[in-house]
Amino acid sequence: MTPHAVKKRIILDVDTGHDDALAIIMAASDKRLELLGITVTAGNQILEKTLKNTLNVTQALGLNVPVYSGMHRPLLQDLATAERIHGESGLDGPVFRPPVRGAEPLHAVQYLIDTVMKEPVGSITLVAVGPLTNIAMAVRLCPDFAHRLSELIIMGGSMTHGNVTPSAEFNIHADPESASIVFSSGAPLVMIGLDCTTRVTLTDALYDRFAGISGPAGYIFSASMAHYIRSCKQYIGESPAMHDPCCVAWAVNPSIFTWKNHFVAIECRGNYTRGRTIVDQTGVSSEKPNAKVVYAIQPEPFWEQLEASLRHFSNVS
Amino acid sequence: MTPHAVKKRIILDVDTGHDDALAIIMAASDKRLELLGITVTAGNQILEKTLKNTLNVTQALGLNVPVYSGMHRPLLQDLATAERIHGESGLDGPVFRPPVRGAEPLHAVQYLIDTVMKEPVGSITLVAVGPLTNIAMAVRLCPDFAHRLSELIIMGGSMTHGNVTPSAEFNIHADPESASIVFSSGAPLVMIGLDCTTRVTLTDALYDRFAGISGPAGYIFSASMAHYIRSCKQYIGESPAMHDPCCVAWAVNPSIFTWKNHFVAIECRGNYTRGRTIVDQTGVSSEKPNAKVVYAIQPEPFWEQLEASLRHFSNVS
Amino acid sequence: MTPHAVKKRIILDVDTGHDDALAIIMAASDKRLELLGITVTAGNQILEKTLKNTLNVTQALGLNVPVYSGMHRPLLQDLATAERIHGESGLDGPVFRPPVRGAEPLHAVQYLIDTVMKEPVGSITLVAVGPLTNIAMAVRLCPDFAHRLSELIIMGGSMTHGNVTPSAEFNIHADPESASIVFSSGAPLVMIGLDCTTRVTLTDALYDRFAGISGPAGYIFSASMAHYIRSCKQYIGESPAMHDPCCVAWAVNPSIFTWKNHFVAIECRGNYTRGRTIVDQTGVSSEKPNAKVVYAIQPEPFWEQLEASLRHFSNVS
Amino acid sequence: MTPHAVKKRIILDVDTGHDDALAIIMAASDKRLELLGITVTAGNQILEKTLKNTLNVTQALGLNVPVYSGMHRPLLQDLATAERIHGESGLDGPVFRPPVRGAEPLHAVQYLIDTVMKEPVGSITLVAVGPLTNIAMAVRLCPDFAHRLSELIIMGGSMTHGNVTPSAEFNIHADPESASIVFSSGAPLVMIGLDCTTRVTLTDALYDRFAGISGPAGYIFSASMAHYIRSCKQYIGESPAMHDPCCVAWAVNPSIFTWKNHFVAIECRGNYTRGRTIVDQTGVSSEKPNAKVVYAIQPEPFWEQLEASLRHFSNVS
Repeated sequence: MTPHAVKKRIILDVDTGHDDALAIIMAASDKRLELLGITVTAGNQILEKTLKNTLNVTQALGLNVPVYSGMHRPLLQDLATAERIHGESGLDGPVFRPPVRGAEPLHAVQYLIDTVMKEPVGSITLVAVGPLTNIAMAVRLCPDFAHRLSELIIMGGSMTHGNVTPSAEFNIHADPESASIVFSSGAPLVMIGLDCTTRVTLTDALYDRFAGISGPAGYIFSASMAHYIRSCKQYIGESPAMHDPCCVAWAVNPSIFTWKNHFVAIECRGNYTRGRTIVDQTGVSSEKPNAKVVYAIQPEPFWEQLEASLRHFSNVS
Repeated sequence: MTPHAVKKRIILDVDTGHDDALAIIMAASDKRLELLGITVTAGNQILEKTLKNTLNVTQALGLNVPVYSGMHRPLLQDLATAERIHGESGLDGPVFRPPVRGAEPLHAVQYLIDTVMKEPVGSITLVAVGPLTNIAMAVRLCPDFAHRLSELIIMGGSMTHGNVTPSAEFNIHADPESASIVFSSGAPLVMIGLDCTTRVTLTDALYDRFAGISGPAGYIFSASMAHYIRSCKQYIGESPAMHDPCCVAWAVNPSIFTWKNHFVAIECRGNYTRGRTIVDQTGVSSEKPNAKVVYAIQPEPFWEQLEASLRHFSNVS
Repeated sequence: MTPHAVKKRIILDVDTGHDDALAIIMAASDKRLELLGITVTAGNQILEKTLKNTLNVTQALGLNVPVYSGMHRPLLQDLATAERIHGESGLDGPVFRPPVRGAEPLHAVQYLIDTVMKEPVGSITLVAVGPLTNIAMAVRLCPDFAHRLSELIIMGGSMTHGNVTPSAEFNIHADPESASIVFSSGAPLVMIGLDCTTRVTLTDALYDRFAGISGPAGYIFSASMAHYIRSCKQYIGESPAMHDPCCVAWAVNPSIFTWKNHFVAIECRGNYTRGRTIVDQTGVSSEKPNAKVVYAIQPEPFWEQLEASLRHFSNVS
Repeated sequence: MTPHAVKKRIILDVDTGHDDALAIIMAASDKRLELLGITVTAGNQILEKTLKNTLNVTQALGLNVPVYSGMHRPLLQDLATAERIHGESGLDGPVFRPPVRGAEPLHAVQYLIDTVMKEPVGSITLVAVGPLTNIAMAVRLCPDFAHRLSELIIMGGSMTHGNVTPSAEFNIHADPESASIVFSSGAPLVMIGLDCTTRVTLTDALYDRFAGISGPAGYIFSASMAHYIRSCKQYIGESPAMHDPCCVAWAVNPSIFTWKNHFVAIECRGNYTRGRTIVDQTGVSSEKPNAKVVYAIQPEPFWEQLEASLRHFSNVS
């Protein structure tokens, strides 16, 4: 990459959240990315809280990135947050000063549509790391939306077992109908599910490796991951997976991932399987592939990217 | 095992079928098993054909085992056979003399109930290698049936992908409601699904290893597996898995398998997941385990058992 | 009708229950009917209780009709009784002496199959006034069963609103999968649902008209209907409908009913409609009619038939 | 009503359509209504055609009412139009001059939100006579939308049988998920379904009564209803019901209708019942009423209102 290389222009859709906070840090700090805006949805917590967390993180990092408030609930089913994991605030752990700047007046869905329709075809990469409600609304309101994206990188789903039910992963389970709209939209999808993200779990040793980094990103990491590690160990029995950051890692460097093209559908019915990503790994369905489905990530390059992002803000603040 | 060791008394429920034929050979030849009877269901082909195939195999092997005709269709959905794989007869390949002995007059479901209720509690092992319609009918007609079994060894399901849809394996997909009745029956279940059976596929080299064995079992093996290998390669793109024989291998020697206790449910709805076995591998559902779920089999001991069974009939006939 | 006219030979399938008791009285007393046997299923109460109630009623009436115990639970879903309406015993109100004769040793499903297969084609009328589990099991176990019936008269369903949910009537809602099996079986169906049965409700005036009739049937009527009226008024807000007796009325005299041929299907899924009878009244589905669907009954001839049946036992005992 | 009476301010949401055209005529001509805008959705035909039909009608009538283009497809399922009834154009029959004025640049959903949020609470009546996709999107994008409406009058559903399936009416069946969102939104709903609208069918005699009225509305009536009568007779076997005009009649004069408060839910699953309006007429569900459900309309006052609307344009043009 030469000094004059064009940056990848991304919009980040979040439900901030501990791993969302790291994804923001990575997206905002990498030279190879231009973070145009952040859209917020309900998910890990109610919208009021995920929005506040997002504004807190962007302010603490000193970012000049507009934040847009979006959907306050899933398309059909009731909202079910992950308070057990992310705490009452949705980002328990770090302490922030009161936010000075609020969300932009424009609705997140309208911002997504306006930006993607205004910018050249294929110039925007959308990184969606929460329930897909904002994205689904944009897809339905604007028939050209999906096809104009350069890539739509999604944190969600699983080819094996889920993490909220034996079948389903949280983000897809949180709004299966929206996920179904997005996965059938024709957008150039990358599905980064548990098969990938559970390969980069933040062990105590890894926490110690990064916890001393100075600056606001280092602080957010230390304070938020201390909570995240504790709650994941308590309720899942494991160190936390770096779900959302994987999506930013793909945006920067897909070469550290292994993946295949597959047909993916979302189960919206099912007594036991609602919210499952059906990935046709063998081609038995005869359906045409609609997504790059990630199988694995090389851990060490990922951790190095995370570390670089954290250190980026040591110099800044 | 001493010469006087008590044999495990089994009933085999089949939809014969190529791999069913091998399961019969193994069940009828192993010294450690006493094959009390064979019950037949529709599945790989219509009942008329699976019954005829079963009678052909038992006659060719010279077995004195009663055969009972059972359910001609699934509980709710229409019958969908696997003619593409097993051929028009359901057991294309070998040629048999016309059967002399027919099925017993008693219905297979009644035979299952009568036998299990008459014999001591915990003395009968039921090995079910077809759709679970016969077993489900027995479970519903007779409230004590499930609890009186020593073990119910099922060929069916998958923890990863399916073989008729991305989600579902053939036997469960063929009658999900019956499978649901059986998996929730309280019977001591062993689920041997694709995760296990696809680890013992009959490669050309393995075919060559066994194809020259003399006697009727050797003949059935050679003639039927030649067809099975051809159709599996053509339609699945792989050498055939030894699905049904794995269940007889478990009945004799579970120590060559790896398995865990899990809660398993059957998805009967779902746009994409009907017939899937939901296996709660992580305990996220908080449901109590109801089955031993097999993850793998050691191939070589399995092949040796198959070989011994084939050779058993070299001496006999 | 001449003195030598052939009686209609019927089997009554019940989940006794208050209105079932009246149906038994009517079926056992009418000269135009020969009641061959009574099969019992769980429904209004658990099987143990519906069986006991049936034996109590037949003994009190001095009937020499064999009673067969059948299915103790629905095919798939859990049993949900109507204890609120029919009381803890399932037939609260009348007091009976301990039953001397028990159920026959044969299972109700086997009795149904044996009788229908043994008797000439088209010679048996089956009157099913409970959940359709026994009938569905017979249909599935015996492919010829449905086609050999003269008529299968069912108390169940509704073209308008239901009585356990806005969509579903109790008997169908109690076991939708069994109902689906029966309605798609090809049997010559008569569906007598709420559209008909709610036109003959036992007002206080009608109760008074019949309550003084002497003999065991009169006693059962008075004692059971006093409870039934009270619970129906309390929980449904209406005098009780004579659901089950309508079916016996049809068996004797269909000319007092209005009906049309329609296609009827059973909804087994649905968030709100599970157990609904889908009646294609306008032909919009283009499906072929499979049932006579009753729209109405002339009340007075019905009450006269009931009265005659009650009085029949005045002379007897 | 005094000369200074405040007009009811309405927005009309249409999928024009023959009966939609009459609804526009009635909404635009009645002194008691102020038609603020017309929003258009796909339904009777694809959006391009329903929009064109709407613009054609408003131009022919000389209306100065803004028209907004909305959703081009249902929320989840694929679009299924009623071309058989409404013809290739969606409004076969009348011939129009090319439209001069196009749709407003604002999206229909945004117009709905902007207007309802800008105007005082309870001042806007929304009359929705097509599939409910536009309304559902507004409800989800704007949490306050539903509660700010004065009334939301819906043409859709049935308490008895449907007109596209035995269970479902066209508008609800066309987008059940949107209907579900709208019916559970908390908006002050009026459900005008087939129970009402099939009581005002345009017989040949009624057609003759109105067909000679001069002016553009008379022309649209004569030319469009000639087609509509023909296709309804051919495909439904009946004279056409005045579905959509009933909703405008309610907006002006609810006293000619009979109705009750009921709980209404939308069935989104179901093998046979998808798109059915579940109306709890007896209260068996214990759910709180969320809609005024119309049972009937007095025909003659309706026809007089229609006639007055048609004649209104005789003087104008």
